[in-house]
Amino acid sequence: MAYRYDVAALGSAIVDVLAPVDDQFLLDHNIAKGVMTLIDDHRAAQLHHALGTPREIAGGSAANTMAGLASLGGRGAFEGKVRNDRLGAQFATSLKGLGVHYATKPATDGPSTALCLIAVTPDGERSMNTYLGASREFSTEDVDEAEIAAAQILYIEGYLWDAPNAKAACLKAISVARRAGTKVAFTLSDPFVVGRYRDEFLAILSDLDIIFANEDEAKALFEVETFDAVLQAARASWHGIAALTRSEKGCVIAQKSEVHVVDAWPIERVVDTTGAGDQFAAGFLYALTRNRPLAACGRLATLCAAEVISHLGARPETSLKMLAADAGLI
Amino acid sequence: MAYRYDVAALGSAIVDVLAPVDDQFLLDHNIAKGVMTLIDDHRAAQLHHALGTPREIAGGSAANTMAGLASLGGRGAFEGKVRNDRLGAQFATSLKGLGVHYATKPATDGPSTALCLIAVTPDGERSMNTYLGASREFSTEDVDEAEIAAAQILYIEGYLWDAPNAKAACLKAISVARRAGTKVAFTLSDPFVVGRYRDEFLAILSDLDIIFANEDEAKALFEVETFDAVLQAARASWHGIAALTRSEKGCVIAQKSEVHVVDAWPIERVVDTTGAGDQFAAGFLYALTRNRPLAACGRLATLCAAEVISHLGARPETSLKMLAADAGLI
Repeated sequence: MAYRYDVAALGSAIVDVLAPVDDQFLLDHNIAKGVMTLIDDHRAAQLHHALGTPREIAGGSAANTMAGLASLGGRGAFEGKVRNDRLGAQFATSLKGLGVHYATKPATDGPSTALCLIAVTPDGERSMNTYLGASREFSTEDVDEAEIAAAQILYIEGYLWDAPNAKAACLKAISVARRAGTKVAFTLSDPFVVGRYRDEFLAILSDLDIIFANEDEAKALFEVETFDAVLQAARASWHGIAALTRSEKGCVIAQKSEVHVVDAWPIERVVDTTGAGDQFAAGFLYALTRNRPLAACGRLATLCAAEVISHLGARPETSLKMLAADAGLI
Repeated sequence: MAYRYDVAALGSAIVDVLAPVDDQFLLDHNIAKGVMTLIDDHRAAQLHHALGTPREIAGGSAANTMAGLASLGGRGAFEGKVRNDRLGAQFATSLKGLGVHYATKPATDGPSTALCLIAVTPDGERSMNTYLGASREFSTEDVDEAEIAAAQILYIEGYLWDAPNAKAACLKAISVARRAGTKVAFTLSDPFVVGRYRDEFLAILSDLDIIFANEDEAKALFEVETFDAVLQAARASWHGIAALTRSEKGCVIAQKSEVHVVDAWPIERVVDTTGAGDQFAAGFLYALTRNRPLAACGRLATLCAAEVISHLGARPETSLKMLAADAGLI
């Protein structure tokens, strides 16, 4: 069967706003260093102004994954909500420019496009303030059933559970996918997200075909203390593919009787780990849609993660397709 | 069934002779820095003399493992050949002092007791010159059939394949063990050993119940390039337990459908990695004889390895039994 899309993704539509600052700036604006804080529209406007002329880059976890998929030569579609404002237009232009199909209607009123204000201090630390804005308004009406049915895999980010409308949209999309025979992949996104929605995530587990989780997220999901206990829990309680990422320890890919231990792709220096999980998912999903064996999916995934942590920013700066071809992986 | 011994081990009976030297000493005596070189009796006597008043410690890979087993409270027996000379007596006294049963008759003529001359330079590097001497003379007549039959597990080091008589003794011991219902564990010892005897090791694989191998040794055995390929080869081609060690990446324990990924035990600082594999085997075998699940065997193994790499020398300096109890592992 031919699919129009390799992957259709649902995610938060966010623009990253980066600016170099000094530590005094963090103090002056009460910014907690090195962590992510959710902020409201008033504070977002205030900080955005204070950052002067920052660099604006389309971001968002699942959107970053679609950017990576496109860089590998895959066909992706993205669904997520922006407002019809300057940053919303920029988010759309960026995705479309990469060849990712993006047709979710922007909101014509309500909160403005989501943004993540990133203050980068001279020591390389990133202090993030996120305003979710319009991205929270993604709803069941925005779900494009035909698009999901035309995709081989539906990919959903767990971050969306923080917005009730978006969560309802995800549940609808999963139901559409199951009826259409589209596989469902899910990323746990963040250990705190898992903490908040653990029971709900476990409840949808049987509807999922692929889970992406880093070690902390997976421990939170299964409420266990060691990585091996995660592995045993995933294999014993679930039929699907668990793609478990472990930073410099590489990843473990498991599905029932199959287990693969794949090393991290060697790199010279880690510059910025932002986006590692997003690009890991891109590589894994791309290889999976090409019917590659699980170990090969894991290897391509680690290569894509290695590219993105070798530079600042959460999207690839080199053609992943060329890198993968050079490495003999595609 | 009650066993008189938890583990009976066959190995090279070697005394380690350590002395601090400067780099000029290495140059003056043509010692290759940081590697292990096999030497003859003439050179052994010469170097031993030149080292002045060195520290002498009973060593040998499988003997170190029996020392670790004893430190855990296990009952071990060792079979290996020394000469009836000063170092031979020292080797025997050392093992017996730890409570390890050791009754192999010392040779009354022929080469002297094996020794490993270790020149430690101020940078912490260890340059080793090994004289195998009497340890090569272990033969089928030395194999104590009753002792092996009285043990739950027979443990053999692959190093012995370098001595034809000792290799024949090992094959006899394996055959005795199989008839008696004693399980057989084997360590691949060294990637170069595997390179020399790969076909012979593969030929005895079906007679083995447990294999210990570090990553390089296992890759050499299965002739594959990645760790995951080792894991798949071990699971596909063999019924037994593969205990695959990965230094700071911990270990993977696999047996058919069962796979455990166990992290390295956290330590403050690696001082000397000598003996890590030996003590890993001690912990693993001890837990296995107590019918602990494979993941628990792996955890105790990593704790024992962590103890020995935290100080100079290849045998534990703290009671492994107390350490394991403190960690809640036994």
